[in-house]
Amino acid sequence: MATRIKASEPDHLSSAATGAEARALIRSGRFKGHTAGLAPGRVQGNLAILPRDWAEEFLRFCQQNPKPCPVLAVGEPGSPALPSLGQGIDIRRDVGHYRVFRDGECVDEPVTLDDVWRDDLVTFVLGCSFSFEWALLEDGLKLRHIEQNLTVPMFRTTIETVPTKRFKGGLITSMRPFKPADAIRAIQITSRFPAVHGAPVHIGHPEMIGVRDLSKPDFGDPLEVKADEIPVFWACGVTPQNVVASAKPPLFIAHYPGCMLVTDLNNSKLSSF
Amino acid sequence: MATRIKASEPDHLSSAATGAEARALIRSGRFKGHTAGLAPGRVQGNLAILPRDWAEEFLRFCQQNPKPCPVLAVGEPGSPALPSLGQGIDIRRDVGHYRVFRDGECVDEPVTLDDVWRDDLVTFVLGCSFSFEWALLEDGLKLRHIEQNLTVPMFRTTIETVPTKRFKGGLITSMRPFKPADAIRAIQITSRFPAVHGAPVHIGHPEMIGVRDLSKPDFGDPLEVKADEIPVFWACGVTPQNVVASAKPPLFIAHYPGCMLVTDLNNSKLSSF
Repeated sequence: MATRIKASEPDHLSSAATGAEARALIRSGRFKGHTAGLAPGRVQGNLAILPRDWAEEFLRFCQQNPKPCPVLAVGEPGSPALPSLGQGIDIRRDVGHYRVFRDGECVDEPVTLDDVWRDDLVTFVLGCSFSFEWALLEDGLKLRHIEQNLTVPMFRTTIETVPTKRFKGGLITSMRPFKPADAIRAIQITSRFPAVHGAPVHIGHPEMIGVRDLSKPDFGDPLEVKADEIPVFWACGVTPQNVVASAKPPLFIAHYPGCMLVTDLNNSKLSSF
Repeated sequence: MATRIKASEPDHLSSAATGAEARALIRSGRFKGHTAGLAPGRVQGNLAILPRDWAEEFLRFCQQNPKPCPVLAVGEPGSPALPSLGQGIDIRRDVGHYRVFRDGECVDEPVTLDDVWRDDLVTFVLGCSFSFEWALLEDGLKLRHIEQNLTVPMFRTTIETVPTKRFKGGLITSMRPFKPADAIRAIQITSRFPAVHGAPVHIGHPEMIGVRDLSKPDFGDPLEVKADEIPVFWACGVTPQNVVASAKPPLFIAHYPGCMLVTDLNNSKLSSF
């Protein structure tokens, strides 16, 4: 999910230099906030947990829609472990804040999943824009929403996802404005990160994807696009949350916006070349 | 140099399937036209020949300006061979049509260099947009100037090249219009071809690079840019020709526009990944 990366972080975060340390801090209950800035350079992921009979179809939906739904890992049914993302991960306790949906309605926002975990639940971790934003920042590009400490603006579009029987809906995009040369560079950099939304889905003509007013995002904060800039749109991790909630499965668990799973993977390892 | 690729080619060209065959056809005197379409998939190059005392500085200029001046090969002083580009190349006879400049003025357009060759001449072959256009077409993108059998429109810009003592001047760009998703794809594809101009230098706001009227190119033909398209600008091989002619060396030899050196290299081999 595209969410706020804080420009400055509390001092105690600096102690969480690795994914394991960040998860230990979260599991201890001492940290429940936004995970941006935790374990710098480590991959953070969006969370989606579904009952087994919905999970198979969701995986197919993700396979058909890799840009909004880049799957980093899928857990075994009933298992809270995700060994490919980090040793000792217990997905029931290693995210600081969850959202529990029943029949499409958010009914609870717990800090552990101890009370809702079931033996048929399947965990999905999807790549998130933190990783490609890290790559853009490392390259020296500036991201206005970060500089202004805002949540990236997100827009519903007329681009349809490729549906399965129960999962369908429009692509939701995040928008970042760049000067032309930086837009070209941003396309190059994010193209190397297909596991975290990859290349943009659109540049320059918002009305072509159904975005009528850049100053009125559907989620996140409005962000200025200057006359000498180009709005660049990436597929956004809000898409699968929206699609799944709309399908109204009896149970669906997601992370609370901004409270991601911090993994042991280095962002740089997601680069395809 | 960005020039016309003919939509259809005379039948006899189909016999020149390899670079060596194309060069043999040209050397025999039976072919003096545009080389677009000759030896499909093989790299073609722009030609620049300078006296040794100017060549060292030109190589430095190219090194400083790799986007407009991507060097594919440099010959030994006095040698007409370019072994890294093709066996048996004789640069004095293997291009169909040349231009000879003295003190910056075009004084002759011969079909061989037999009468002007000297022991101090150094040959440069620079990558040309034919190679990246090949890659774009292979990927299924459409190029309007090719579809309409026009020469790609080229524009002087306010972007300055990095000068040497004698070589300086503005970057000249070629422009191709694309729908947004195709523009993103074109950036991805051409980024993989740094040896043939590489990624675009600008997208979307022509006025920012000093291009005031897209319908009035400085070279080539006007080309429509539709309301739902983005103009994409690449560094153009006309730049070095223009820069060198402006420096008025006593002798400078170039290919006649569109009459390139056909090499033995496959375009695909220029891809950086």
